[in-house]
Amino acid sequence: MNQPQTKAPQTAITPTRFDDYPEWYQQVIKAGDLAENSPTRGCPVIKPWGYAIWENIQQVLDRKFKDTGHVNAYFPMLIPKSFFEKEAEHVEGFAKECAIVTHHRLEPGPNGTLVPAGELDEPLIIRPTSETIIGASYAKWVQSYRDLPILINQWANVMRWEMRTRMFLRTAEFLWQEGHTAHANAQEAVEETMQMLDVYEWFAHEYMAMPVIKGEKTPGEKFPGAVNTYTIEAMMQDGKALQAGTSHFLGQTFAKSSGIKFQSKEGTEEFAWTTSWGVSTRLIGGLIMTHSDDDGLILPPRLAPKHVVLLPIFRNDEEKGPVLEYCKKVKKELEAQTYMGERLRVELDVRDHLRGGEKTWQHIKKGTPIRAEVGPRDMAADSLFVARRDMGVKEKKTVTRTDFVSTITTVLDTIQKNLFDRALALRESKTKTFTDFSEFAKWFTPKNEEKPEIHGGFAVAYWSPEADAAKEINDKLASLKVSARCIPLNDNAPAGKCLFTGRQTNVRVIFAKNY
Amino acid sequence: MNQPQTKAPQTAITPTRFDDYPEWYQQVIKAGDLAENSPTRGCPVIKPWGYAIWENIQQVLDRKFKDTGHVNAYFPMLIPKSFFEKEAEHVEGFAKECAIVTHHRLEPGPNGTLVPAGELDEPLIIRPTSETIIGASYAKWVQSYRDLPILINQWANVMRWEMRTRMFLRTAEFLWQEGHTAHANAQEAVEETMQMLDVYEWFAHEYMAMPVIKGEKTPGEKFPGAVNTYTIEAMMQDGKALQAGTSHFLGQTFAKSSGIKFQSKEGTEEFAWTTSWGVSTRLIGGLIMTHSDDDGLILPPRLAPKHVVLLPIFRNDEEKGPVLEYCKKVKKELEAQTYMGERLRVELDVRDHLRGGEKTWQHIKKGTPIRAEVGPRDMAADSLFVARRDMGVKEKKTVTRTDFVSTITTVLDTIQKNLFDRALALRESKTKTFTDFSEFAKWFTPKNEEKPEIHGGFAVAYWSPEADAAKEINDKLASLKVSARCIPLNDNAPAGKCLFTGRQTNVRVIFAKNY
Repeated sequence: MNQPQTKAPQTAITPTRFDDYPEWYQQVIKAGDLAENSPTRGCPVIKPWGYAIWENIQQVLDRKFKDTGHVNAYFPMLIPKSFFEKEAEHVEGFAKECAIVTHHRLEPGPNGTLVPAGELDEPLIIRPTSETIIGASYAKWVQSYRDLPILINQWANVMRWEMRTRMFLRTAEFLWQEGHTAHANAQEAVEETMQMLDVYEWFAHEYMAMPVIKGEKTPGEKFPGAVNTYTIEAMMQDGKALQAGTSHFLGQTFAKSSGIKFQSKEGTEEFAWTTSWGVSTRLIGGLIMTHSDDDGLILPPRLAPKHVVLLPIFRNDEEKGPVLEYCKKVKKELEAQTYMGERLRVELDVRDHLRGGEKTWQHIKKGTPIRAEVGPRDMAADSLFVARRDMGVKEKKTVTRTDFVSTITTVLDTIQKNLFDRALALRESKTKTFTDFSEFAKWFTPKNEEKPEIHGGFAVAYWSPEADAAKEINDKLASLKVSARCIPLNDNAPAGKCLFTGRQTNVRVIFAKNY
Repeated sequence: MNQPQTKAPQTAITPTRFDDYPEWYQQVIKAGDLAENSPTRGCPVIKPWGYAIWENIQQVLDRKFKDTGHVNAYFPMLIPKSFFEKEAEHVEGFAKECAIVTHHRLEPGPNGTLVPAGELDEPLIIRPTSETIIGASYAKWVQSYRDLPILINQWANVMRWEMRTRMFLRTAEFLWQEGHTAHANAQEAVEETMQMLDVYEWFAHEYMAMPVIKGEKTPGEKFPGAVNTYTIEAMMQDGKALQAGTSHFLGQTFAKSSGIKFQSKEGTEEFAWTTSWGVSTRLIGGLIMTHSDDDGLILPPRLAPKHVVLLPIFRNDEEKGPVLEYCKKVKKELEAQTYMGERLRVELDVRDHLRGGEKTWQHIKKGTPIRAEVGPRDMAADSLFVARRDMGVKEKKTVTRTDFVSTITTVLDTIQKNLFDRALALRESKTKTFTDFSEFAKWFTPKNEEKPEIHGGFAVAYWSPEADAAKEINDKLASLKVSARCIPLNDNAPAGKCLFTGRQTNVRVIFAKNY
């Protein structure tokens, strides 16, 4: 959707990104067999191909969390209302979107129906996040500075009753990890906050091939109850921002509301300093919108459920036997190798009730990085007909089996790098610095009413904290559907004038429309 | 708790198994730092050491599920009441214990409180199990026999509002996996049901070191809605049975209520045949009650979060340096090895604010299979002072470093086998066959009113299906607090007389008190 283009003769996904980006997104998910709606409003079914991506995300992050000293645990999904209410700013942030359990059994009602019965003395909230219930445990566990730090992560489902949902990006139920740590002093907690932000950046760059900007949220965009919220922000292909992960320095806010106190080395009683940090299945939405094209999903090799799909081609049973044998041999040779510390993931698609073209298109739409067709003639030449998903669907080339097997991990890394590089190039081409508000406003205003999604991209502008609180400025931004995404870390900009207030400042902010 | 014994001078857990088995169980969990109650009634916090056991269980089972052709997916945790009501027997089985979401936001109420608002048109049930919501998806996914089988597993939290809860064994929220498969014919579905039962038996025997009896549930003990329920039943040290895993052949029951229909090879429209199977965090309760002793937890090596703990011993900083160096070297040598396909898990406990004895006892109570102390004299002799958790806490022996490192995996397997063997021996010593009801009743009647837990154990008896339905017989069993656990598979018993009805039968049933 970079530029208007003459319509391609045919694409696997209808509409194209250019024609209707939001609908294209839904169709990529459908064609890629990633997820679908369920009978429960706002709660999707994550299908096996989509869930396998999430499992790969989990595996890499879980290992990294453990390497950085964290352990996993599990806390209740239901939070008593009174615990949830303990921190005023926090409860205000979530009260409008929480699912509430009020009864604990069904009883026969009129006309053979069943009706809720057994009303609870105190309603229970399905966790939208777990600071308050985890804080209650930490308060019990921490007595002395020797009990600190606590470095715990939880993999869990959470629930936020969003009115407008969008698959992976904003759903009522979603899956995530939430790290919750407690420390004896502010410095250690800040270091933890920044360490986990770095972990998220590393993961986005090295695994998702998704360039992100690390930054701090402006006060208006902070997590409810946090002192500072840090974020990684990515640009999607339509120029909108995706907040892909956040790491919060919570100061002593939740320690005070939960009573996490300890006796310091010096014998004084103090409140702990806490952090929390999380990423969710939203990352899958980020993957889709960063890399996919008008033929469907494109997966970065390091997170793809399958690295390679082998597609045997034959016209009859006589050809079938030897071609399958040959494919099995190649599969074995590939699987003897590792990529990123894991055995190479190879699919051999033996289904024979689909035409070859149909099969190939399924794998294109599912985004598998490398496809290799093998027919009798390829086999006779001891070679495969190979395509890379990051290139045009018709760009295929003959590769000898020996070369194919020996270069496979190099090719996967080449694809991984190519995806990162072109995402970065897109972001750079769609990011502009502004010193004039009317130019800034024009950047975000669609030129074509029929294509409301098409606008400039990211805007960088000087910003002073006073702008954040000013209603007039916020109204202007809201009318453009633009928000402050973050103050990039290590920006080192010379001083300049705030775009909104004219005040001198050395802080710059990235503004964007966002998911 | 096998026999009354003269009281040991000291045990780490008070009370002992003999003195008060249920309380001993709670104290082992506490001393082992596995889990604790939370502010949410019936919903425990699974602490890092307990959760690490669950992670090991998950890893082994997940690999096995995938090796047997299954993939993971994720379905909504909230089920619309109408979907839940579709299968009458099913809803009846769970209606009395389900958590119900009725509202989706909190609003300011009287006196500054927040009250539930935004009442839902249709209440939502937090899944107690997912047959009905998963069935709705399968009905969409299945059109032709080519779409079958569907072989999906889900790792999830579930909620059953139990009135009396017991840590790990019966809690309102728990973690589990639920496999849900759909097949084109009954035979395939039955084969799947039995395959997964075999997987559970394999896991119990090979990893948990917990002998189980594979069997079929009698009609009165089936899963609500199942045609046949198969189970693995284990004996705990107090002679009670633990249902450790179940695999259900659901026939066409749920396919009919959910509408999972397909066009067969022959062109007819048919309902699919489905199965479901699950194990849960209850397995951790089983581990505890199968192996632990009056000094706390004993973990089978194959599921222990740490295989070995190294305990450096020193009196001053001068000794500390070299002892720690030596321990680090041993740790590295151990970690260069694999056990059951994973890197050996070694903890080096460097905490120096605890006395040596206190540290050692913590690891005893946490059940780590091998403890190795290293002081300056051990180091000088290039040896370690080694203890096995499956033996008396004072049985330690000096082992040279070379021997310790080279035999470690053998020793772990020896411990694993020893734990299995002694659990099997206990079960055999506490299982008896009965042909007379009054003897049977005596077997289950505590001899000592002050020790109501102490009774015979498992009873094997001939049983005819008519006994299952007879109220009088069920009342008798209920008054003994005994239930039919299962009809053991492949029993091949000669015909005999039903213990209850006197009818000829070749079916035998295992009866027990149960968790």
